[in-house]
Amino acid sequence: MSRTIKLAVIPGDGIGPEVVAEAVKVLGAVTARDDVTISTSMFQLGAARFLETGDVLTDADLASIQQHDAILLGAVGGVPGDQRLKDANIERGLLLGLRFALDHYVNLRPCTIYPGVTSPLAAPGVVDFVVVREGTEGPYVGNGGAIRRGTAQEIANEVSVNTAYGVERVVRYAFEVAQSRERKRLTLVHKTNVLVFAGSLWQRIVNEVAAEYPRVEVDYLHVDAATIFFVTNPSRFDVLVTDNLFGDILTDLAAAISGGIGLAASGNINPTGRFPSMFEPVHGSAPDIAGQQLADPTAAILSVALLLDHLGLTDAAARVNEAVADDLRRRSNLMRRSTAEVGDAIVTLLTD
Amino acid sequence: MSRTIKLAVIPGDGIGPEVVAEAVKVLGAVTARDDVTISTSMFQLGAARFLETGDVLTDADLASIQQHDAILLGAVGGVPGDQRLKDANIERGLLLGLRFALDHYVNLRPCTIYPGVTSPLAAPGVVDFVVVREGTEGPYVGNGGAIRRGTAQEIANEVSVNTAYGVERVVRYAFEVAQSRERKRLTLVHKTNVLVFAGSLWQRIVNEVAAEYPRVEVDYLHVDAATIFFVTNPSRFDVLVTDNLFGDILTDLAAAISGGIGLAASGNINPTGRFPSMFEPVHGSAPDIAGQQLADPTAAILSVALLLDHLGLTDAAARVNEAVADDLRRRSNLMRRSTAEVGDAIVTLLTD
Ligand SMILES: CC(C)[C@H](C(=O)O)[C@@H](O)C(=O)O
Ligand SMILES: CC(C)[C@H](C(=O)O)[C@@H](O)C(=O)O
Repeated sequence: MSRTIKLAVIPGDGIGPEVVAEAVKVLGAVTARDDVTISTSMFQLGAARFLETGDVLTDADLASIQQHDAILLGAVGGVPGDQRLKDANIERGLLLGLRFALDHYVNLRPCTIYPGVTSPLAAPGVVDFVVVREGTEGPYVGNGGAIRRGTAQEIANEVSVNTAYGVERVVRYAFEVAQSRERKRLTLVHKTNVLVFAGSLWQRIVNEVAAEYPRVEVDYLHVDAATIFFVTNPSRFDVLVTDNLFGDILTDLAAAISGGIGLAASGNINPTGRFPSMFEPVHGSAPDIAGQQLADPTAAILSVALLLDHLGLTDAAARVNEAVADDLRRRSNLMRRSTAEVGDAIVTLLTD
Repeated sequence: MSRTIKLAVIPGDGIGPEVVAEAVKVLGAVTARDDVTISTSMFQLGAARFLETGDVLTDADLASIQQHDAILLGAVGGVPGDQRLKDANIERGLLLGLRFALDHYVNLRPCTIYPGVTSPLAAPGVVDFVVVREGTEGPYVGNGGAIRRGTAQEIANEVSVNTAYGVERVVRYAFEVAQSRERKRLTLVHKTNVLVFAGSLWQRIVNEVAAEYPRVEVDYLHVDAATIFFVTNPSRFDVLVTDNLFGDILTDLAAAISGGIGLAASGNINPTGRFPSMFEPVHGSAPDIAGQQLADPTAAILSVALLLDHLGLTDAAARVNEAVADDLRRRSNLMRRSTAEVGDAIVTLLTD
């Protein structure tokens, strides 16, 4: 039985197009034998498009992206300091625009130290955890404002908005993930001793949902203490669930300890299927090395694995993960490779 | 000319009294030759006091603490999970209570990897930076609330409040610190691409104050990216200035990379002198190891160095820092020592 997957591809800016090209190559290779056809539509969004047309994300863009089963995004963002982009905030308008419009309430960010990869930690141990970051609430809602701007009397506020509805759905997802894993351990990360209202909402919901998952062991860490464990004992983590901003901070730290942002994949997921989910490397557009085939496409390729998993093609997802792990294991003995050479090597491992 | 320093001492809970005892011992030893008299008043505040009297921090406590030149605090907080403390939030009531009442707008947290100390990082390089964390604003102001609590319709908000007045005074302090140091480099850490109102206030003030400090080199990092550099290249940092919550997170991470929370000192400073400043180790009360002479008093002793510096006793401060550095260098060859043995060793190094 053949299946066609309609994929919206947003290569974006900087190294985005290069890494996405390899990710699409790998996607084609891994699904060929499953009798799955990938039909891709390209969306030229990002800083370059904004400079050309003044648009970041139009209703028409959104409507047309929604006709797809999933989204693969490279990276967005122009050259830092480009005055023409000063007031545009492309990352916010496009990335957060898509996450909010498509209700990507689960931001899934696995963290694994692959054999062969050098961690900046002296003795990291076996590290394999997943951060389930909330994606549509918290301080990311855009509920800020300022008065007396530009004066000595300015006051600027930012409101973190947290709802039982929003917290419960992401917490439930995190429990499902934890239950499906060997260790079945879930750590709530927040700052309940200071953010007492948001914190007690998160804590209450975790306690309530925990009652439905008796096999999952639950603990709690303040976000500051969590960063300590990320560097002193990252093996202690299995699944973490946390707020949008804490998740943003912790997942960059997670990427750093596991060998760098060049390997960190993420999924922006709407588990209901009502909107297409979006998969992207955690790294940015790195305009300084763009167009030179210097970028490592591994994070984009691992994002393809998350995408396949999300679409129910779990075997294909596992094959991509294994090919990447293989490639990383062999990598230390290799010369510096171009972006395409890494993609080709992974395709070879997949099709051999 | 003899000088008397009136010191309010808050030993607190758990390991607080043990580490404070060593800090006071060191303070006495180092100031003896300077013809400085330390007159200490003890304040029994913390979880134990709350359980006895129901009070966390009364107006009378505050009035009497304010009669002092400075405050030395051990650690506060009861045994986690103690149901009698459930609604008390001692840390918030006492620590934040003091920081806000005494307008401790500078939270100064140095981070040094001392020779002889093992960092969890494989190759940290030479690390010696200072985080200047804002102490009286941001998401710490207690401006949160919730409606429909305990229901599926609950909404819980937390407001981060940022004022030009509050940001400017701490940014100015950070520039002074940067200017006084060899590298003269200041990094603003925020999340301007998401927290656009608070972020642009911080960025504007930094830009404005920078004009007055032409010799200080300024750069900017998003908080998520900053955590990456903390583990991949901490030597890049000299002085950081950041918001209350980001500072909380980053300074625990800083403590972790520099050999642990057992070595991290902090000052809660009101630079105007209008209120007494407070010095405390970054670590908590660790009730699990309390009363057993297992705690390392080094962070409390380094907090004494910050206190001496603040009181203008810079030579004495330098001597404490050197004695601690000496002790840490020799430490690897030593057996496990009791809390008091560490204090005694440092006193010996100071008085030899
Ligand atoms: C670019 C930025 C808006 C974004 C975020 O803060 O979520 C990024 O840091 C990420 O983690 O995907
Ligand atoms: C105990 C807590 C309220 C406090 C804070 O968040 O500031 C602590 O983590 C610190 O960093 O001193």
